[in-house]
Amino acid sequence: MRVHNFSAGPATLPEAVLNRIRDDLPDWAGTGMAIMEISHRSREFVALAERAEANLRTLLSIPDHYRVLFMQGGATAQFAAVPLNLCAAGQRADYVVTGTWGQKAVKLGAPYVDVHVAASSQASGFTRIPDRSDWDLSTDAAYVHYTPNETIGGVEYPEIPDVGGVPLIADMSSTILSRPCDVSRFGLIYAGAQKNIGPAGLTLVIVRDDLLDRARRETPSVLHYKTMADAGSMANTPPTFTWYVAGLVFEWLLEMGGLEAIAKLNDAKQAALYTAIDNSSLYSNPVHPPHRSCMNVPFLLEDASLEARFLEQAVAAGLANLKGHRSVGGMRASLYNAMPMAGVEALIDFMQEFERSA
Amino acid sequence: MRVHNFSAGPATLPEAVLNRIRDDLPDWAGTGMAIMEISHRSREFVALAERAEANLRTLLSIPDHYRVLFMQGGATAQFAAVPLNLCAAGQRADYVVTGTWGQKAVKLGAPYVDVHVAASSQASGFTRIPDRSDWDLSTDAAYVHYTPNETIGGVEYPEIPDVGGVPLIADMSSTILSRPCDVSRFGLIYAGAQKNIGPAGLTLVIVRDDLLDRARRETPSVLHYKTMADAGSMANTPPTFTWYVAGLVFEWLLEMGGLEAIAKLNDAKQAALYTAIDNSSLYSNPVHPPHRSCMNVPFLLEDASLEARFLEQAVAAGLANLKGHRSVGGMRASLYNAMPMAGVEALIDFMQEFERSA
Repeated sequence: MRVHNFSAGPATLPEAVLNRIRDDLPDWAGTGMAIMEISHRSREFVALAERAEANLRTLLSIPDHYRVLFMQGGATAQFAAVPLNLCAAGQRADYVVTGTWGQKAVKLGAPYVDVHVAASSQASGFTRIPDRSDWDLSTDAAYVHYTPNETIGGVEYPEIPDVGGVPLIADMSSTILSRPCDVSRFGLIYAGAQKNIGPAGLTLVIVRDDLLDRARRETPSVLHYKTMADAGSMANTPPTFTWYVAGLVFEWLLEMGGLEAIAKLNDAKQAALYTAIDNSSLYSNPVHPPHRSCMNVPFLLEDASLEARFLEQAVAAGLANLKGHRSVGGMRASLYNAMPMAGVEALIDFMQEFERSA
Repeated sequence: MRVHNFSAGPATLPEAVLNRIRDDLPDWAGTGMAIMEISHRSREFVALAERAEANLRTLLSIPDHYRVLFMQGGATAQFAAVPLNLCAAGQRADYVVTGTWGQKAVKLGAPYVDVHVAASSQASGFTRIPDRSDWDLSTDAAYVHYTPNETIGGVEYPEIPDVGGVPLIADMSSTILSRPCDVSRFGLIYAGAQKNIGPAGLTLVIVRDDLLDRARRETPSVLHYKTMADAGSMANTPPTFTWYVAGLVFEWLLEMGGLEAIAKLNDAKQAALYTAIDNSSLYSNPVHPPHRSCMNVPFLLEDASLEARFLEQAVAAGLANLKGHRSVGGMRASLYNAMPMAGVEALIDFMQEFERSA
C-alpha cells in the first residue's frame, strides 16, 4: 500500500509516473528493450530527450535565448561549475545566504571565485530573507547567487530580487516547477532533479546564451556549459533513465494544467498546513511568515520529548519521512508537486489527533 | 517481445533484473514507496548501498586497503578527476593509447597534467596493443593510464601490463566484471555503469588508500575522491535508483556463480562469434587475434553496400543495435555479461543465413 511520503528528497513522485515506468518494463514502446538499455544516440532516445526539453520549455515559458542542459552531479556540482564557467580566477561574485544550501554554495565556490557574502540571515537563525535594501552588492561582481528556497530551514523568497544588470544565478533545486517563473530575470538557473523533477542523478541547467562561453580551461568537460550545449547534453553518456522519468513528470505537469494550476494546488496545500500549525498550541514554525517556504514546512513540537512518539504514530498512520533534517531537528513536511492535497489533509488530521491525545 | 540487444552502451541488462525493478514498483520492500522516492540517508537505502558494495567486493575480491566510490559523470568525468586527484599541476603522467577512449583520456587530461603518450597503436589503426617492450615510460610519472578494453575498436589487453611501482590507472568501463581481475595490481580503476553494471549515470571508482588524499584544492567536491570516500559516496545526493540497479546486477552475478563462471560464458560467446567471422568469406574482424575484445566484436562486410540490408534483416530477426560506431562504420556486436549465449547463437545463425543468401 502506498504511503504519503513527505521526504525532502529524493522525494515522492506522481503515482501515475511510477505506474508508467512499471508498465514500460521490460519492453519500452514496442522496442523489445527497456528504456535504460537504449543508446542515448538512438533515434528513439533522441526523440524522447527533445520532447522532454520541449515540454520543459512550455511549462516554464523558457525564452529562445536560453539553453537547457541535462547534466549530472546535482546542485553540489554546480556550486563549482557556476564560478568555473562564469568568471575568471580572482574575479568577485556576490552570494546571498539564507540557509544551509547557500552556505554550501559559498564554501564550494570559494576555491574558484572571490566570494563576497552580500547579505546573510544567519543572525536570525535563517528564519527570514534579508531586506533587499540591506544587500551589500559589489560594483564589479560577475554574478549574484542566491537560493530561492532553502530546503532545510524552510525559507523562500516571495519574489525574484532585483539586482540590476548583473546576472542573477539561482539554485532552484527545491522550488523549480512549483509555480510559474519569469526565466528572463535570470542569467542561470540550476536544479537537482530529486525534488520536483525525477530521481536523483540529473541536474537541470537553464542558461542565457551570452553566459555560455566564458568557461576557464580547467573546467572539467562534464561541467562545461558550452561543451554540453554544443552536444545536446550528450558530450558523454547522459543518465538516460532519469531523463526519461523527468520527461514523464513534465508530461504529468502538463496534464495537471501546467504551472498555474500546480501553483494553486501548492498554495492550498501550504496554506492549510501553516494554518493548522499556527492554530495549534503544540506545533510551531519559526520562519517569518512572509518568507515561509511553500515546499518545505519545518515545525517544532512544544515538548520535544514527544517527537519520537509523533514519528512512530505518523508512520503507523501511513505518513512517512516527517523527521526534520539532522542539523535542525524537529519535523519537516515537504509538499512537492507530487504530494496530493489528500496527503496534506491526512497529515493535518493526524497532527490534530496527536495534539488532542498528547 | 524482448529482442537480443547488442548495443555498446547503454546496454542490455539481465531480464531477471528488469523484472525485479518492475515488481518493486511502485512499492519497494513493503515501504509503500518506490526505491527512487527514498532518502539516500534512510536506514533502508544505506543498508542497500552497503550490501551493493559488499557484493562488489566479493565479486572482485577487492582488498581492504581499496575504497569503492559510487560517483557520477561517467568515465568522461574521471578523465579530469584522475589528474586532479592524483598529481600536482605540471607533473607528468604516462598514457598508453589503443583507441578512441584512450585518445579522449589524453585530450581531457591535458589541462591538468603534463600528458606523455608512452605508447600508441594509432599507426596500426588501433588494431593491436603496442608491445610492452616499446613503451616509453617516464621515470617521474605520477601514474600510467590505459584502457584495458576499447569499446569502439574492439581491442583488449590479454593481461595487465607491468609498470613497476608506478600507480596503474585503468578505464575499465567496458570490461569490468567480465572476468576475475587482480585489483591489487592497480592504483585506481574506474568504470561507467552503462555496460556491465547498470543504467547510465553511475561511475564506479576503486582506489587504493594511499592515493586518496592527493587532490588539488580546485578539485570539484563531486569529483574529489577523499571527500566522497569520507562521506560513503554521499557527499551529495547519489544516483539512488542507479545504485539500486547496480546492486541487483551484482546479486545476479553472484547467482550466476561469480566472475569465474561469467568468464567461462563470455569466453564461449566470443569464441563462437570470432570463429564464425573467421570461417566466413563475407565477414572480417581487423584486430590482431590475441588482442581481440571479448566484450565488443566489430566486423566488416566484404561488400559494404550490403550493410543496410544486413541491419534491416537483423532487426526483423530480433537482433538489435548491430550498427558499428559512426567513427569506424561496419558492424559491432557487444557481448556484455547480460547477453546470453542464445543471443550469440541467434546472431551467428542470422549471419550465416545472410551470407548464404547474399
